[in-house]
Amino acid sequence: MGRRATDQRRAERSAELARRGTELADATLRGDRRALARLLTAVEDRSPVAESAMRRLYRKAGRAQLVGITGPPGSGKSTLVSALIGQLRGAGRSVAVVAVDPSSPITGGALLGDRVRMQSYAGDRDVFIRSMAARGHAGGLASTTGAAVAVLDAAGFDHVFIETVGTGQSEVEVAAAADTTVVLEAPEMGDEVQAIKAGLLEVADIVVVNKGDRPGALRTASQLRAMLSAAAPAAIDDRPRPKRPEVLVTTATTGEGVPELVAALERRRDAGAAGSAGPARLARAEAQVWAIATERLRARLHDRDHRDATEATLRQVADHEIDPYAGADRLLGEATET
Amino acid sequence: MGRRATDQRRAERSAELARRGTELADATLRGDRRALARLLTAVEDRSPVAESAMRRLYRKAGRAQLVGITGPPGSGKSTLVSALIGQLRGAGRSVAVVAVDPSSPITGGALLGDRVRMQSYAGDRDVFIRSMAARGHAGGLASTTGAAVAVLDAAGFDHVFIETVGTGQSEVEVAAAADTTVVLEAPEMGDEVQAIKAGLLEVADIVVVNKGDRPGALRTASQLRAMLSAAAPAAIDDRPRPKRPEVLVTTATTGEGVPELVAALERRRDAGAAGSAGPARLARAEAQVWAIATERLRARLHDRDHRDATEATLRQVADHEIDPYAGADRLLGEATET
Repeated sequence: MGRRATDQRRAERSAELARRGTELADATLRGDRRALARLLTAVEDRSPVAESAMRRLYRKAGRAQLVGITGPPGSGKSTLVSALIGQLRGAGRSVAVVAVDPSSPITGGALLGDRVRMQSYAGDRDVFIRSMAARGHAGGLASTTGAAVAVLDAAGFDHVFIETVGTGQSEVEVAAAADTTVVLEAPEMGDEVQAIKAGLLEVADIVVVNKGDRPGALRTASQLRAMLSAAAPAAIDDRPRPKRPEVLVTTATTGEGVPELVAALERRRDAGAAGSAGPARLARAEAQVWAIATERLRARLHDRDHRDATEATLRQVADHEIDPYAGADRLLGEATET
Repeated sequence: MGRRATDQRRAERSAELARRGTELADATLRGDRRALARLLTAVEDRSPVAESAMRRLYRKAGRAQLVGITGPPGSGKSTLVSALIGQLRGAGRSVAVVAVDPSSPITGGALLGDRVRMQSYAGDRDVFIRSMAARGHAGGLASTTGAAVAVLDAAGFDHVFIETVGTGQSEVEVAAAADTTVVLEAPEMGDEVQAIKAGLLEVADIVVVNKGDRPGALRTASQLRAMLSAAAPAAIDDRPRPKRPEVLVTTATTGEGVPELVAALERRRDAGAAGSAGPARLARAEAQVWAIATERLRARLHDRDHRDATEATLRQVADHEIDPYAGADRLLGEATET
């Protein structure tokens, strides 16, 4: 009896959350920016509200150009993104920015300078800037980012920038949420940093040497061109790599080189526009679907009916009483029983 | 008929791989270091050989102290690990090192300087050093590292060091494979680097300022102590955090401070030895079991019976014809049908 009452309350609660998600989605599609902001919070919180909203919104997405912007700290990503916004707004385009900081996975937190940027476009409803904290593991971040990007795409923005700070694996996973990845470099970096950025260059479609007014910028650009032509990477992953990345030089603070970068983005947009989803979009769909599928499986293993058995199995593995393969088989068996 | 013959060949092949894994495991348990090396290659390749070996070995593991060593490039990790090996060998302990480089996820590759280190202990069968390339995504790296560590643990090493290079998310995931995490810092770093390392400090059990003979080392150590006592983090994740991390100063090149670091590790070893698996080992077991479970599910979705349906579903999501939640439900439904 008590359990049935609890079940009913839970079902009511869940219907209420689904209704709220649908409402937020409809309001977002009508252009309501406050609803959009609230929906992104739900996505970030992985709330059930986000699921029903995504179910409503997702099929409207697929029109925006998704551009990842990444590079080491101090390379001027935020300034360059601001310059790109200015240029694109001048051409009548709408722009959304998702700024992700994966470097501090536990505390997360908004990016420095975002408040400033948001204020400078405060009156313009065709610019939308949002910081996302990196909660949970890298895979989770990639899937949350993917969902946020789909929401902004469905909301009708022409360009969605995904800006990440830091260096390494996380950027690569976040880059997977974009059609086109721009990697920034600052001029005159030491040898060690060169070694680190090899990993980043591998995901680059366009490499930008920013702070182009500094001595060494042109030399860095020609070094990068030499590196990239020596490496001439084959398609190691599933992302399309029709030719080696372009190397451009910008000075984001003055705007120099920014029109050329916008032109390069436009060329890639045109190239990617034809026909059915290419390998990058297919890989992204797979990542999103997979994240949801594993999340459901995990939720099932920790629900009221399975929790005790799951915990007992994990404890046996931790105590080295059974091996992890036997543990996995047992959990999968339990989760797929009906 | 053709299909039945194929199925039989596949079953024979799979029995052969399982037999080879069991043999490698038994040889490893007998102390055969060549078998150990070959088994670790199988783990790294995610070969079916590794699965049968792990099934045989895993229950013998659980006795080694697992220590993660991480920190930014240039902080002297490899030199410090070498100094720790020297100190522990002097006390009659056996030591294995897994050196992981997550910074270049696509090409991977062995760490610089490992050949040199391996040569200097070439005659000593109680020292085993192994580089692991970071293939696939960060989660995959963590699970491969976890399996490699379990193999070395079962092989009877008293201490297993997990050394990672780079900064960020990947280290945090790799750190999860250790009982104790040591984070290195170099003296005199700029403000920006300080911000990055906040994420690393959150996973630290012991913070080591290496290159202690440089000016600024003691100042860096006291700054870190002040930071850590100001932050005084609560247990945000499931890892045990009985007190705030110790801050030690070492000069790995001369060995100064290394005995104190070994003593700190011993204290943690004693503290963690009693009773059933603590939260860190439980979290690690969960990560390993989960990685295996999702890998099995994924393999099932891409096997001969499910591949076409899986690809069709993913394409519909990529083309925004169905939403990713509907796609996930469809895939889970297919994978769990019997």
